[in-house]
Amino acid sequence: MKNTPMKNSNTKKVTVQKVVKKDYAKMALQLHKKLHGKIEMVSKQKLLTRDDWSTMYTPGVGAVSSYLATHPKEARNYTIKRNTVAVISDGSAVLGLGNIGPIAALPVMEGKCAILKEMAGVDGFPIVLDTQDTEQIIQTIKNIAPGFGAINLEDISAPRCFEIEERLKKELDIPVMHDDQHGTAIVVLAGLINAAKVVKKKFNELKVVVVGAGAAGRAVTLLLKQAGILNIIVTDSAGVIYRGRSGMAPYKQELAKMTNPTNCKGLVADAVSGSDVIIGVSGPGTITKAHIQSMAKDAIVFALANPIPEIKPEDAYSGGAHIVATGRSDYANQVNNSLAFPGIFRGALDRGVNAITDEMKLRAAKKIAALVKHPSQNDIIPPVTTPGLVKAVSSVVK
Amino acid sequence: MKNTPMKNSNTKKVTVQKVVKKDYAKMALQLHKKLHGKIEMVSKQKLLTRDDWSTMYTPGVGAVSSYLATHPKEARNYTIKRNTVAVISDGSAVLGLGNIGPIAALPVMEGKCAILKEMAGVDGFPIVLDTQDTEQIIQTIKNIAPGFGAINLEDISAPRCFEIEERLKKELDIPVMHDDQHGTAIVVLAGLINAAKVVKKKFNELKVVVVGAGAAGRAVTLLLKQAGILNIIVTDSAGVIYRGRSGMAPYKQELAKMTNPTNCKGLVADAVSGSDVIIGVSGPGTITKAHIQSMAKDAIVFALANPIPEIKPEDAYSGGAHIVATGRSDYANQVNNSLAFPGIFRGALDRGVNAITDEMKLRAAKKIAALVKHPSQNDIIPPVTTPGLVKAVSSVVK
Repeated sequence: MKNTPMKNSNTKKVTVQKVVKKDYAKMALQLHKKLHGKIEMVSKQKLLTRDDWSTMYTPGVGAVSSYLATHPKEARNYTIKRNTVAVISDGSAVLGLGNIGPIAALPVMEGKCAILKEMAGVDGFPIVLDTQDTEQIIQTIKNIAPGFGAINLEDISAPRCFEIEERLKKELDIPVMHDDQHGTAIVVLAGLINAAKVVKKKFNELKVVVVGAGAAGRAVTLLLKQAGILNIIVTDSAGVIYRGRSGMAPYKQELAKMTNPTNCKGLVADAVSGSDVIIGVSGPGTITKAHIQSMAKDAIVFALANPIPEIKPEDAYSGGAHIVATGRSDYANQVNNSLAFPGIFRGALDRGVNAITDEMKLRAAKKIAALVKHPSQNDIIPPVTTPGLVKAVSSVVK
Repeated sequence: MKNTPMKNSNTKKVTVQKVVKKDYAKMALQLHKKLHGKIEMVSKQKLLTRDDWSTMYTPGVGAVSSYLATHPKEARNYTIKRNTVAVISDGSAVLGLGNIGPIAALPVMEGKCAILKEMAGVDGFPIVLDTQDTEQIIQTIKNIAPGFGAINLEDISAPRCFEIEERLKKELDIPVMHDDQHGTAIVVLAGLINAAKVVKKKFNELKVVVVGAGAAGRAVTLLLKQAGILNIIVTDSAGVIYRGRSGMAPYKQELAKMTNPTNCKGLVADAVSGSDVIIGVSGPGTITKAHIQSMAKDAIVFALANPIPEIKPEDAYSGGAHIVATGRSDYANQVNNSLAFPGIFRGALDRGVNAITDEMKLRAAKKIAALVKHPSQNDIIPPVTTPGLVKAVSSVVK
């Protein structure tokens, strides 16, 4: 990795990290074809002796089944339920690729399971669904839930993802978390806590524009509100979300109620003028250099569309941004969900909680932020390799 | 293991194997509590370097997803679908314990997954269902099917298991097998092929009584018919199943049509008189010494209820049986499904077949039978540790 100093319009030295570009697409295709699936199930005990067979399976296992029939809560001690998370997608909103279906979503879910195990010792198992019907998804997940300790929803499109998550949270007694919403929100909040320190602005007084009102946009907005930010405006492809705008989906009407204190109208350009923070959770091209130029001094820009951000970091800097974060690993300040979800699920399984609450998410964000000892322009978010990360995050789930 | 010679009524020396009795119930409870679940999911590749992250997950995984979106059949080469079997139960008919529900079924399903991996390198994953409604089960399994290469139904009670399996076989493009039916039937047929050789009777001319008309009883009957046995009578708790008996479930009416050539009526005692083979797939006490005494010379008795057989092997021998098989590992001639299902699923995954056919089951039984080089009274079924077992069985699936 090579760091190239360059100047931004504030004439401060900033660093855009550049790397030798590798053809990760080709490398990934080769790796996946070689592995034939990235994860595998293994037996914790070999079946060598007759005692192995008679205790792992019949007749001995009958005693365990009989015991659990009358003590179902003991599943935590006697079965895989204790450490197993279902990673479930219907393939309707996979990465930046859109609605590509369950089979195409499977490698992503396998990857999350690999991350869960490698980072946090959690046994994730991918389930990809052959339905995109909200009621079918809810019923299917309820039907397969008994063997799992928690449910990680993944890459399900808005607004269905909101109802699916909310219903399952009510109807199941294990934690359910849609990571595209809450994992993203936690890491964005962590980064913003540190970014505010770097630019020496009061966190609660930040004026924030969230560009994009999908799963991540809604969750980021709700968590920033919970964290105390009063002035948030959300935009979608039709422009600013405001009270009284016609034809909005019900969840956008809800967003309108709790954001946009002056009920301003117009396009992104109207919202961002004079703002301190812009958070892009939409797609390439939705944030322009002109937008950045109209922001307040020491602008903070999170351009999180992946792999192609809403605006190139170089353009954001030259437009006047002081801090830029992306979802990419080849720039500074990577907003990476893997900072949050492994620890969240580790904590949820260890403590046997039945929900991931807003309070836990807030605490998780603060823990992640605190792992950066001395926040600076290019260091507001810790890397996933930070020692103690999973332990710190898991400790907030209780 | 200590073998104690004893005499049966035919004054031939037979051997009832006796073992030092171990408290497998206690040992199994201890083992399960120690392991906290018998299987675990592991990543085939560590996430150490940035290249690992970028190829196992984003951005590289996006190329794999994009490729699969347009080439879904390539999931066999790029995902876990190639080697993964769902082991699914609703907990309605678990071992001999009955309807004890999904949580209590989980240790049994984990055990089957451990066996699949240890014996055949297959990645089994247990799914226990919070519904016993036939339509819900079918829909749920269809919804979660895309990520699996095959479905192993397990411990689902009759007659629901018949419709569930038959519908799924029609509606899914991957193999579906209810092991309680077909695994049992394959191993029973294997044992009976060798037993007929030992008593020097023509296989096709055996007169067989199947005591029990549940999942295993029906499947054993159908496969023995396929194998060429003409004279089979099935009994249930109400006695002999015959054409015209009132109040029978539809599947029993079907059984009546294809069995019982003389359409005899009455109780088990009426059916077994003069028969060559009695196969118990019901519960303790349904076969008596008087039944055995009324059978033809060199009677063959399979008493498969587990852990307590329909009749104690000692009583069967003293009643005149020449060959006795049970489901237990502490007697000779164990009818153990693990002889069949690991190889069946290994073959199904390797060859990418979309169904397990009757022809495959017949060939599997013959392969298993042939692994016993010199069949004898106490050696009609090979042990699960027989070298080449899985390879032999898997070779028939094509």
